[in-house]
Amino acid sequence: MDHHGGRPRAERARQLADVLRQQITDGAFADGTLPDERDLGRRFGASRNAVREALALLREEGLITRRRGVGTTVLLPKYGHGLDRLTGLAEELTGRGTVTNEVRVAAEVPALPAAIAARLEVPAGAGGVYVERLRWLDGLPLSLDTSYLTAGIGRAVLAGDLRGRDVFRLIEEAAGVPLGRAEVAVHAVNADPGTARLLGIEPGAAVFALERLTRLADGRPVDTESIRIRADRMTLRATLGRGGPRTT
Amino acid sequence: MDHHGGRPRAERARQLADVLRQQITDGAFADGTLPDERDLGRRFGASRNAVREALALLREEGLITRRRGVGTTVLLPKYGHGLDRLTGLAEELTGRGTVTNEVRVAAEVPALPAAIAARLEVPAGAGGVYVERLRWLDGLPLSLDTSYLTAGIGRAVLAGDLRGRDVFRLIEEAAGVPLGRAEVAVHAVNADPGTARLLGIEPGAAVFALERLTRLADGRPVDTESIRIRADRMTLRATLGRGGPRTT
Repeated sequence: MDHHGGRPRAERARQLADVLRQQITDGAFADGTLPDERDLGRRFGASRNAVREALALLREEGLITRRRGVGTTVLLPKYGHGLDRLTGLAEELTGRGTVTNEVRVAAEVPALPAAIAARLEVPAGAGGVYVERLRWLDGLPLSLDTSYLTAGIGRAVLAGDLRGRDVFRLIEEAAGVPLGRAEVAVHAVNADPGTARLLGIEPGAAVFALERLTRLADGRPVDTESIRIRADRMTLRATLGRGGPRTT
Repeated sequence: MDHHGGRPRAERARQLADVLRQQITDGAFADGTLPDERDLGRRFGASRNAVREALALLREEGLITRRRGVGTTVLLPKYGHGLDRLTGLAEELTGRGTVTNEVRVAAEVPALPAAIAARLEVPAGAGGVYVERLRWLDGLPLSLDTSYLTAGIGRAVLAGDLRGRDVFRLIEEAAGVPLGRAEVAVHAVNADPGTARLLGIEPGAAVFALERLTRLADGRPVDTESIRIRADRMTLRATLGRGGPRTT
Protein backbone atom coordinates (compact mmCIF):
# COMPACT_ATOMS: atom_id res chain seq x y z
CA MET A 1 0.00 0.00 0.00
CA ASP A 2 2.65 2.44 -1.15
CA HIS A 3 0.05 5.21 -1.43
CA HIS A 4 -0.02 5.25 2.35
CA GLY A 5 3.72 5.18 2.83
CA GLY A 6 3.62 8.38 4.84
CA ARG A 7 0.96 7.19 7.28
CA PRO A 8 1.62 5.75 10.71
CA ARG A 9 2.30 2.03 10.64
CA ALA A 10 -0.66 1.34 12.91
CA GLU A 11 -3.00 2.75 10.28
CA ARG A 12 -1.46 0.75 7.48
CA ALA A 13 -1.70 -2.34 9.70
CA ARG A 14 -5.40 -1.69 10.31
CA GLN A 15 -6.03 -1.38 6.57
CA LEU A 16 -4.17 -4.57 5.86
CA ALA A 17 -6.09 -6.33 8.64
CA ASP A 18 -9.36 -5.16 7.05
CA VAL A 19 -8.47 -6.70 3.72
CA LEU A 20 -7.26 -9.94 5.31
CA ARG A 21 -10.37 -10.24 7.49
CA GLN A 22 -12.53 -9.88 4.44
CA GLN A 23 -10.54 -12.57 2.62
CA ILE A 24 -10.64 -14.92 5.60
CA THR A 25 -14.40 -14.62 6.06
CA ASP A 26 -14.87 -15.11 2.33
CA GLY A 27 -12.90 -18.34 2.57
CA ALA A 28 -10.09 -17.12 0.33
CA PHE A 29 -7.54 -19.31 2.14
CA ALA A 30 -9.04 -22.67 1.33
CA ASP A 31 -6.77 -24.80 3.50
CA GLY A 32 -6.95 -22.30 6.35
CA THR A 33 -3.30 -21.30 6.06
CA LEU A 34 -2.28 -17.71 5.33
CA PRO A 35 0.77 -16.85 3.21
CA ASP A 36 3.91 -16.07 5.20
CA GLU A 37 4.81 -12.54 6.29
CA ARG A 38 7.20 -11.93 3.42
CA ASP A 39 4.63 -13.05 0.87
CA LEU A 40 1.84 -10.97 2.44
CA GLY A 41 4.13 -7.95 2.47
CA ARG A 42 4.82 -8.38 -1.23
CA ARG A 43 1.14 -8.82 -2.03
CA PHE A 44 0.16 -5.64 -0.24
CA GLY A 45 3.29 -3.57 -0.75
CA ALA A 46 3.52 -3.39 3.03
CA SER A 47 6.51 -3.57 5.33
CA ARG A 48 7.20 -6.72 7.33
CA ASN A 49 6.39 -4.78 10.51
CA ALA A 50 3.03 -3.59 9.20
CA VAL A 51 2.18 -7.17 8.22
CA ARG A 52 3.12 -8.41 11.68
CA GLU A 53 0.99 -5.74 13.31
CA ALA A 54 -1.99 -6.57 11.08
CA LEU A 55 -1.70 -10.24 11.98
CA ALA A 56 -1.50 -9.30 15.67
CA LEU A 57 -4.82 -7.43 15.31
CA LEU A 58 -6.48 -10.45 13.72
CA ARG A 59 -5.08 -12.71 16.43
CA GLU A 60 -6.50 -10.36 19.07
CA GLU A 61 -9.89 -10.74 17.40
CA GLY A 62 -9.61 -14.52 17.74
CA LEU A 63 -9.61 -14.96 13.98
CA ILE A 64 -6.19 -16.53 13.47
CA THR A 65 -3.51 -18.33 15.41
CA ARG A 66 0.22 -18.06 14.81
CA ARG A 67 2.62 -20.84 15.69
CA ARG A 68 6.30 -21.10 15.04
CA GLY A 69 7.01 -23.70 12.39
CA VAL A 70 3.33 -23.99 11.46
CA GLY A 71 2.65 -20.43 10.36
CA THR A 72 -0.54 -18.44 10.46
CA THR A 73 -3.78 -20.39 10.33
CA VAL A 74 -7.44 -19.51 10.49
CA LEU A 75 -8.57 -20.42 14.01
CA LEU A 76 -12.26 -21.02 13.44
CA PRO A 77 -14.39 -20.86 10.37
CA LYS A 78 -16.76 -17.90 10.58
CA TYR A 79 -20.28 -18.88 9.71
CA GLY A 80 -22.48 -16.47 7.83
CA HIS A 81 -25.99 -15.86 9.12
CA GLY A 82 -28.32 -14.12 6.70
CA LEU A 83 -29.99 -10.91 7.81
CA ASP A 84 -32.26 -10.88 4.78
CA ARG A 85 -34.84 -13.44 5.77
CA LEU A 86 -36.09 -14.98 8.96
CA THR A 87 -34.44 -18.32 9.69
CA GLY A 88 -33.60 -20.35 12.75
CA LEU A 89 -29.97 -21.18 13.40
CA ALA A 90 -30.10 -24.91 12.64
CA GLU A 91 -32.15 -24.24 9.54
CA GLU A 92 -29.71 -21.56 8.40
CA LEU A 93 -26.67 -23.77 8.93
CA THR A 94 -28.12 -26.90 7.33
CA GLY A 95 -25.31 -28.72 5.61
CA ARG A 96 -22.66 -26.40 7.05
CA GLY A 97 -22.48 -27.52 10.66
CA THR A 98 -24.25 -29.42 13.42
CA VAL A 99 -26.28 -27.41 15.91
CA THR A 100 -27.11 -28.86 19.34
CA ASN A 101 -28.87 -27.09 22.17
CA GLU A 102 -28.31 -27.18 25.90
CA VAL A 103 -31.67 -26.28 27.44
CA ARG A 104 -30.87 -24.21 30.53
CA VAL A 105 -34.41 -23.06 31.35
CA ALA A 106 -37.76 -24.03 29.83
CA ALA A 107 -40.63 -23.05 32.07
CA GLU A 108 -43.98 -21.37 32.32
CA VAL A 109 -43.89 -17.86 33.76
CA PRO A 110 -46.93 -16.95 35.91
CA ALA A 111 -46.63 -13.24 35.13
CA LEU A 112 -44.39 -11.83 32.39
CA PRO A 113 -42.25 -8.78 33.29
CA ALA A 114 -44.22 -5.65 32.35
CA ALA A 115 -41.86 -4.59 29.56
CA ILE A 116 -42.02 -8.06 28.03
CA ALA A 117 -45.82 -8.16 28.20
CA ALA A 118 -45.95 -4.79 26.45
CA ARG A 119 -43.57 -5.98 23.75
CA LEU A 120 -45.61 -9.14 23.20
CA GLU A 121 -48.79 -7.02 23.18
CA VAL A 122 -50.45 -9.08 25.92
CA PRO A 123 -52.11 -7.56 29.02
CA ALA A 124 -49.93 -6.61 31.99
CA GLY A 125 -49.72 -9.57 34.33
CA ALA A 126 -50.34 -12.17 31.61
CA GLY A 127 -48.44 -15.42 31.85
CA GLY A 128 -46.05 -16.79 29.26
CA VAL A 129 -43.13 -19.09 28.71
CA TYR A 130 -39.40 -18.56 29.14
CA VAL A 131 -36.80 -20.61 27.28
CA GLU A 132 -33.05 -20.23 27.60
CA ARG A 133 -30.73 -22.30 25.48
CA LEU A 134 -27.00 -22.43 25.01
CA ARG A 135 -26.45 -23.35 21.40
CA TRP A 136 -23.48 -25.35 20.24
CA LEU A 137 -22.16 -25.54 16.71
CA ASP A 138 -19.83 -28.41 15.87
CA GLY A 139 -19.09 -28.96 19.54
CA LEU A 140 -18.25 -25.36 20.52
CA PRO A 141 -20.57 -22.79 22.11
CA LEU A 142 -21.98 -20.37 19.56
CA SER A 143 -24.79 -18.43 21.20
CA LEU A 144 -26.95 -17.95 24.26
CA ASP A 145 -30.59 -17.53 23.25
CA THR A 146 -33.32 -16.39 25.63
CA SER A 147 -36.97 -16.25 24.55
CA TYR A 148 -40.18 -15.08 26.10
CA LEU A 149 -43.17 -16.60 24.32
CA THR A 150 -46.88 -15.93 24.59
CA ALA A 151 -48.68 -18.49 26.74
CA GLY A 152 -50.60 -20.63 24.24
CA ILE A 153 -47.89 -21.12 21.65
CA GLY A 154 -45.27 -21.16 24.39
CA ARG A 155 -46.81 -24.19 26.10
CA ALA A 156 -46.77 -26.10 22.83
CA VAL A 157 -43.12 -25.14 22.35
CA LEU A 158 -42.31 -26.45 25.86
CA ALA A 159 -43.75 -29.81 24.83
CA GLY A 160 -41.54 -29.90 21.72
CA ASP A 161 -37.98 -31.08 21.17
CA LEU A 162 -36.11 -28.01 22.42
CA ARG A 163 -32.85 -29.91 22.48
CA GLY A 164 -32.92 -30.83 18.83
CA ARG A 165 -34.89 -28.19 17.00
CA ASP A 166 -35.24 -24.51 16.18
CA VAL A 167 -37.90 -22.68 18.21
CA PHE A 168 -39.25 -21.15 14.98
CA ARG A 169 -40.22 -24.57 13.64
CA LEU A 170 -41.86 -25.51 16.94
CA ILE A 171 -43.86 -22.27 16.86
CA GLU A 172 -44.96 -22.90 13.30
CA GLU A 173 -46.06 -26.43 14.14
CA ALA A 174 -48.02 -25.14 17.13
CA ALA A 175 -49.57 -22.30 15.14
CA GLY A 176 -50.25 -24.38 12.07
CA VAL A 177 -49.03 -21.56 9.81
CA PRO A 178 -45.63 -20.10 8.88
CA LEU A 179 -44.27 -17.19 10.86
CA GLY A 180 -44.75 -13.73 9.42
CA ARG A 181 -41.87 -11.36 10.00
CA ALA A 182 -39.47 -10.28 12.70
CA GLU A 183 -37.90 -6.99 13.72
CA VAL A 184 -34.24 -7.37 14.57
CA ALA A 185 -31.90 -4.95 16.32
CA VAL A 186 -28.21 -5.85 16.33
CA HIS A 187 -25.85 -4.50 19.00
CA ALA A 188 -22.17 -5.19 19.57
CA VAL A 189 -21.21 -5.37 23.26
CA ASN A 190 -18.32 -6.54 25.41
CA ALA A 191 -19.23 -9.90 26.96
CA ASP A 192 -20.00 -9.74 30.68
CA PRO A 193 -18.17 -12.36 32.78
CA GLY A 194 -21.19 -14.67 33.10
CA THR A 195 -21.96 -14.72 29.40
CA ALA A 196 -18.26 -15.10 28.58
CA ARG A 197 -18.03 -18.18 30.80
CA LEU A 198 -21.05 -19.79 29.13
CA LEU A 199 -19.79 -19.02 25.63
CA GLY A 200 -16.22 -20.07 26.36
CA ILE A 201 -14.65 -16.71 25.55
CA GLU A 202 -12.69 -14.07 27.45
CA PRO A 203 -14.68 -11.53 29.48
CA GLY A 204 -14.84 -8.32 27.47
CA ALA A 205 -14.62 -10.06 24.10
CA ALA A 206 -16.87 -8.41 21.50
CA VAL A 207 -20.12 -10.32 20.98
CA PHE A 208 -23.28 -9.64 19.03
CA ALA A 209 -26.37 -8.94 21.13
CA LEU A 210 -29.51 -9.37 19.03
CA GLU A 211 -33.01 -8.42 19.99
CA ARG A 212 -35.61 -10.06 17.84
CA LEU A 213 -39.38 -9.73 17.98
CA THR A 214 -41.08 -12.39 15.87
CA ARG A 215 -44.66 -12.19 14.68
CA LEU A 216 -47.16 -14.69 13.37
CA ALA A 217 -48.45 -14.27 9.84
CA ASP A 218 -51.35 -12.17 11.15
CA GLY A 219 -48.96 -9.72 12.80
CA ARG A 220 -49.38 -10.83 16.42
CA PRO A 221 -46.06 -10.98 18.33
CA VAL A 222 -45.28 -14.46 19.60
CA ASP A 223 -41.60 -14.53 20.63
CA THR A 224 -39.27 -11.84 21.97
CA GLU A 225 -35.64 -12.87 22.17
CA SER A 226 -32.28 -11.65 23.41
CA ILE A 227 -29.45 -13.50 21.77
CA ARG A 228 -25.71 -13.30 22.47
CA ILE A 229 -23.58 -14.63 19.62
CA ARG A 230 -19.84 -15.26 19.62
CA ALA A 231 -18.55 -12.75 17.10
CA ASP A 232 -15.41 -14.79 16.46
CA ARG A 233 -17.60 -17.56 15.06
CA MET A 234 -20.30 -15.73 13.17
CA THR A 235 -20.72 -12.97 10.62
CA LEU A 236 -24.09 -11.43 9.87
CA ARG A 237 -24.74 -10.98 6.17
CA ALA A 238 -27.25 -9.09 4.09
CA THR A 239 -27.76 -8.01 0.52
CA LEU A 240 -29.23 -4.55 0.31
CA GLY A 241 -31.03 -3.02 -2.64
CA ARG A 242 -30.90 0.68 -3.32
CA GLY A 243 -34.40 1.30 -4.56
CA GLY A 244 -37.86 0.74 -3.23
CA PRO A 245 -39.55 1.57 0.03
CA ARG A 246 -38.30 0.21 3.31
CA THR A 247 -40.13 -3.02 4.10
CA THR A 248 -41.31 -1.86 7.53
CA MET B 1 -38.56 -12.27 37.58
CA ASP B 2 -39.67 -14.61 40.35
CA HIS B 3 -39.62 -17.58 37.97
CA HIS B 4 -35.85 -17.35 38.08
CA GLY B 5 -35.55 -16.89 41.79
CA GLY B 6 -33.30 -19.91 42.09
CA ARG B 7 -30.83 -18.75 39.46
CA PRO B 8 -27.53 -17.01 40.16
CA ARG B 9 -27.92 -13.27 40.54
CA ALA B 10 -25.54 -12.64 37.64
CA GLU B 11 -27.93 -14.44 35.30
CA ARG B 12 -30.96 -12.55 36.54
CA ALA B 13 -28.96 -9.33 36.13
CA ARG B 14 -28.11 -10.21 32.55
CA GLN B 15 -31.77 -10.88 31.77
CA LEU B 16 -32.83 -7.61 33.31
CA ALA B 17 -30.08 -5.78 31.39
CA ASP B 18 -31.39 -7.33 28.17
CA VAL B 19 -34.88 -6.00 28.77
CA LEU B 20 -33.60 -2.57 29.77
CA ARG B 21 -31.29 -2.34 26.75
CA GLN B 22 -34.19 -3.11 24.49
CA GLN B 23 -36.30 -0.43 26.16
CA ILE B 24 -33.50 2.13 26.02
CA THR B 25 -32.83 1.58 22.32
CA ASP B 26 -36.55 1.74 21.62
CA GLY B 27 -36.66 5.13 23.33
CA ALA B 28 -38.96 3.95 26.14
CA PHE B 29 -37.47 6.49 28.57
CA ALA B 30 -38.44 9.62 26.74
CA ASP B 31 -36.58 12.10 28.94
CA GLY B 32 -33.53 9.83 29.11
CA THR B 33 -33.94 9.09 32.80
CA LEU B 34 -34.45 5.56 34.08
CA PRO B 35 -36.68 4.78 37.08
CA ASP B 36 -34.80 4.42 40.37
CA GLU B 37 -33.50 1.07 41.62
CA ARG B 38 -36.45 0.41 43.89
CA ASP B 39 -38.93 1.11 41.11
CA LEU B 40 -37.04 -1.03 38.60
CA GLY B 41 -36.92 -3.85 41.13
CA ARG B 42 -40.68 -3.67 41.58
CA ARG B 43 -41.30 -3.59 37.85
CA PHE B 44 -39.22 -6.69 37.22
CA GLY B 45 -39.75 -8.52 40.48
CA ALA B 46 -35.98 -8.40 40.91
CA SER B 47 -33.87 -7.80 44.01
CA ARG B 48 -32.14 -4.47 44.53
CA ASN B 49 -28.77 -6.20 44.05
CA ALA B 50 -29.82 -7.76 40.75
CA VAL B 51 -31.01 -4.33 39.55
CA ARG B 52 -27.71 -2.77 40.55
CA GLU B 53 -25.77 -5.45 38.73
CA ALA B 54 -27.90 -5.04 35.59
CA LEU B 55 -27.29 -1.29 35.61
CA ALA B 56 -23.56 -1.92 36.07
CA LEU B 57 -23.60 -4.07 32.92
CA LEU B 58 -25.31 -1.32 30.92
CA ARG B 59 -22.86 1.25 32.25
CA GLU B 60 -19.97 -0.99 31.15
CA GLU B 61 -21.50 -1.00 27.68
CA GLY B 62 -21.45 2.80 27.66
CA LEU B 63 -25.23 2.94 27.44
CA ILE B 64 -26.03 4.73 30.70
CA THR B 65 -24.39 6.88 33.31
CA ARG B 66 -25.17 6.88 37.03
CA ARG B 67 -24.65 9.90 39.22
CA ARG B 68 -25.51 10.38 42.84
CA GLY B 69 -28.38 12.81 43.20
CA VAL B 70 -29.13 12.74 39.47
CA GLY B 71 -29.92 9.07 39.03
CA THR B 72 -29.50 6.84 36.01
CA THR B 73 -29.59 8.51 32.63
CA VAL B 74 -29.17 7.34 29.07
CA LEU B 75 -25.68 8.44 28.04
CA LEU B 76 -26.07 8.71 24.30
CA PRO B 77 -29.02 8.15 22.04
CA LYS B 78 -28.46 5.03 19.95
CA TYR B 79 -29.22 5.66 16.32
CA GLY B 80 -30.77 2.92 14.24
CA HIS B 81 -29.27 2.15 10.85
CA GLY B 82 -31.41 0.04 8.55
CA LEU B 83 -29.98 -3.18 7.19
CA ASP B 84 -32.84 -3.66 4.80
CA ARG B 85 -31.94 -1.21 2.08
CA LEU B 86 -28.82 0.49 0.85
CA THR B 87 -28.44 3.99 2.26
CA GLY B 88 -25.60 6.31 3.07
CA LEU B 89 -25.19 7.48 6.64
CA ALA B 90 -26.25 11.11 6.19
CA GLU B 91 -29.18 10.04 4.05
CA GLU B 92 -30.25 7.46 6.65
CA LEU B 93 -30.05 9.94 9.52
CA THR B 94 -31.81 12.80 7.74
CA GLY B 95 -33.81 14.71 10.31
CA ARG B 96 -32.33 12.72 13.20
CA GLY B 97 -28.83 14.13 13.47
CA THR B 98 -26.15 16.11 11.68
CA VAL B 99 -23.39 14.16 9.95
CA THR B 100 -20.06 15.80 9.17
CA ASN B 101 -16.99 14.16 7.68
CA GLU B 102 -13.32 14.58 8.42
CA VAL B 103 -11.55 13.57 5.23
CA ARG B 104 -8.34 11.83 6.33
CA VAL B 105 -7.25 10.49 2.94
CA ALA B 106 -8.67 11.07 -0.54
CA ALA B 107 -6.22 10.06 -3.21
CA GLU B 108 -5.65 8.17 -6.40
CA VAL B 109 -3.94 4.81 -5.98
CA PRO B 110 -1.57 3.88 -8.83
CA ALA B 111 -2.07 0.13 -8.26
CA LEU B 112 -4.80 -1.34 -6.06
CA PRO B 113 -3.78 -4.12 -3.65
CA ALA B 114 -4.36 -7.47 -5.41
CA ALA B 115 -7.18 -8.56 -3.08
CA ILE B 116 -8.98 -5.25 -3.59
CA ALA B 117 -8.61 -5.42 -7.37
CA ALA B 118 -10.08 -8.93 -7.32
CA ARG B 119 -12.99 -7.80 -5.16
CA LEU B 120 -13.68 -4.85 -7.48
CA GLU B 121 -13.34 -7.21 -10.48
CA VAL B 122 -10.69 -5.07 -12.17
CA PRO B 123 -7.39 -6.43 -13.57
CA ALA B 124 -4.47 -6.97 -11.19
CA GLY B 125 -2.40 -3.80 -11.10
CA ALA B 126 -5.28 -1.51 -12.06
CA GLY B 127 -5.41 1.88 -10.41
CA GLY B 128 -8.22 3.21 -8.27
CA VAL B 129 -9.10 5.68 -5.55
CA TYR B 130 -8.83 5.46 -1.77
CA VAL B 131 -10.99 7.54 0.56
CA GLU B 132 -10.83 7.47 4.34
CA ARG B 133 -13.24 9.53 6.39
CA LEU B 134 -13.91 9.88 10.07
CA ARG B 135 -17.61 10.56 10.37
CA TRP B 136 -19.07 12.68 13.11
CA LEU B 137 -22.66 12.69 14.24
CA ASP B 138 -23.85 15.64 16.29
CA GLY B 139 -20.27 16.55 17.17
CA LEU B 140 -19.06 13.11 18.33
CA PRO B 141 -17.16 10.52 16.30
CA LEU B 142 -19.43 7.79 14.96
CA SER B 143 -17.50 5.77 12.41
CA LEU B 144 -14.31 5.39 10.45
CA ASP B 145 -15.08 4.59 6.80
CA THR B 146 -12.48 3.46 4.29
CA SER B 147 -13.36 2.97 0.64
CA TYR B 148 -11.55 1.69 -2.42
CA LEU B 149 -13.27 2.83 -5.60
CA THR B 150 -12.76 1.91 -9.23
CA ALA B 151 -10.72 4.49 -11.15
CA GLY B 152 -13.27 6.29 -13.34
CA ILE B 153 -16.03 6.74 -10.79
CA GLY B 154 -13.46 7.22 -8.04
CA ARG B 155 -11.91 10.23 -9.76
CA ALA B 156 -15.31 11.88 -10.02
CA VAL B 157 -15.90 11.17 -6.32
CA LEU B 158 -12.55 12.81 -5.47
CA ALA B 159 -13.78 15.95 -7.21
CA GLY B 160 -16.99 15.96 -5.17
CA ASP B 161 -17.83 17.35 -1.75
CA LEU B 162 -16.44 14.54 0.42
CA ARG B 163 -16.72 16.68 3.53
CA GLY B 164 -20.41 17.28 3.22
CA ARG B 165 -21.92 14.35 1.37
CA ASP B 166 -22.41 10.60 1.27
CA VAL B 167 -20.11 8.77 -1.14
CA PHE B 168 -23.14 6.88 -2.52
CA ARG B 169 -24.69 10.09 -3.81
CA LEU B 170 -21.39 11.17 -5.35
CA ILE B 171 -21.11 7.79 -7.10
CA GLU B 172 -24.64 8.05 -8.42
CA GLU B 173 -24.02 11.54 -9.76
CA ALA B 174 -20.84 10.36 -11.46
CA ALA B 175 -22.51 7.25 -12.87
CA GLY B 176 -25.71 9.04 -13.84
CA VAL B 177 -27.79 6.12 -12.52
CA PRO B 178 -28.79 4.84 -9.08
CA LEU B 179 -26.66 2.23 -7.37
CA GLY B 180 -27.79 -1.36 -7.64
CA ARG B 181 -27.19 -3.47 -4.56
CA ALA B 182 -24.54 -4.13 -1.94
CA GLU B 183 -23.35 -7.21 -0.09
CA VAL B 184 -22.74 -6.49 3.57
CA ALA B 185 -20.93 -8.56 6.18
CA VAL B 186 -21.20 -7.39 9.78
CA HIS B 187 -18.58 -8.32 12.37
CA ALA B 188 -18.25 -7.31 16.00
CA VAL B 189 -14.65 -6.76 17.12
CA ASN B 190 -12.75 -5.18 19.99
CA ALA B 191 -11.40 -1.80 18.90
CA ASP B 192 -7.66 -1.70 18.33
CA PRO B 193 -5.86 1.20 20.04
CA GLY B 194 -5.56 3.30 16.88
CA THR B 195 -9.20 2.98 15.92
CA ALA B 196 -10.24 3.58 19.53
CA ARG B 197 -8.28 6.84 19.61
CA LEU B 198 -9.91 8.08 16.40
CA LEU B 199 -13.40 7.11 17.54
CA GLY B 200 -12.94 8.50 21.05
CA ILE B 201 -13.58 5.21 22.85
CA GLU B 202 -11.57 2.89 25.11
CA PRO B 203 -9.26 0.37 23.41
CA GLY B 204 -11.01 -2.98 23.43
CA ALA B 205 -14.52 -1.51 23.34
CA ALA B 206 -16.84 -3.54 21.12
CA VAL B 207 -17.36 -1.94 17.69
CA PHE B 208 -19.06 -3.03 14.51
CA ALA B 209 -16.76 -3.79 11.60
CA LEU B 210 -18.71 -3.77 8.34
CA GLU B 211 -17.49 -4.90 4.97
CA ARG B 212 -19.62 -3.64 2.15
CA LEU B 213 -19.24 -4.23 -1.59
CA THR B 214 -21.47 -1.89 -3.57
CA ARG B 215 -22.45 -2.46 -7.18
CA LEU B 216 -23.79 -0.28 -9.93
CA ALA B 217 -27.23 -1.09 -11.36
CA ASP B 218 -25.60 -3.28 -14.03
CA GLY B 219 -23.88 -5.42 -11.36
CA ARG B 220 -20.36 -4.03 -11.70
CA PRO B 221 -18.63 -3.48 -8.32
CA VAL B 222 -17.68 0.16 -7.76
CA ASP B 223 -16.87 0.59 -4.06
CA THR B 224 -15.45 -1.79 -1.45
CA GLU B 225 -15.52 -0.49 2.10
CA SER B 226 -14.37 -1.35 5.60
CA ILE B 227 -16.31 0.57 8.20
CA ARG B 228 -15.79 0.70 11.98
CA ILE B 229 -18.84 1.96 13.84
CA ARG B 230 -19.09 2.88 17.52
CA ALA B 231 -21.48 0.29 18.89
CA ASP B 232 -22.43 2.50 21.83
CA ARG B 233 -23.93 4.97 19.35
CA MET B 234 -25.52 2.79 16.72
CA THR B 235 -27.82 -0.20 16.41
CA LEU B 236 -28.28 -2.05 13.12
CA ARG B 237 -31.90 -2.84 12.34
CA ALA B 238 -33.67 -5.09 9.89
CA THR B 239 -37.12 -6.49 9.30
CA LEU B 240 -36.98 -10.06 8.11
CA GLY B 241 -39.71 -11.95 6.29
CA ARG B 242 -40.10 -15.67 6.70
CA GLY B 243 -41.06 -16.71 3.21
CA GLY B 244 -39.62 -16.33 -0.22
CA PRO B 245 -36.21 -17.04 -1.66
CA ARG B 246 -33.13 -15.33 -0.39
CA THR B 247 -32.49 -12.21 -2.46
CA THR B 248 -28.92 -13.14 -3.37
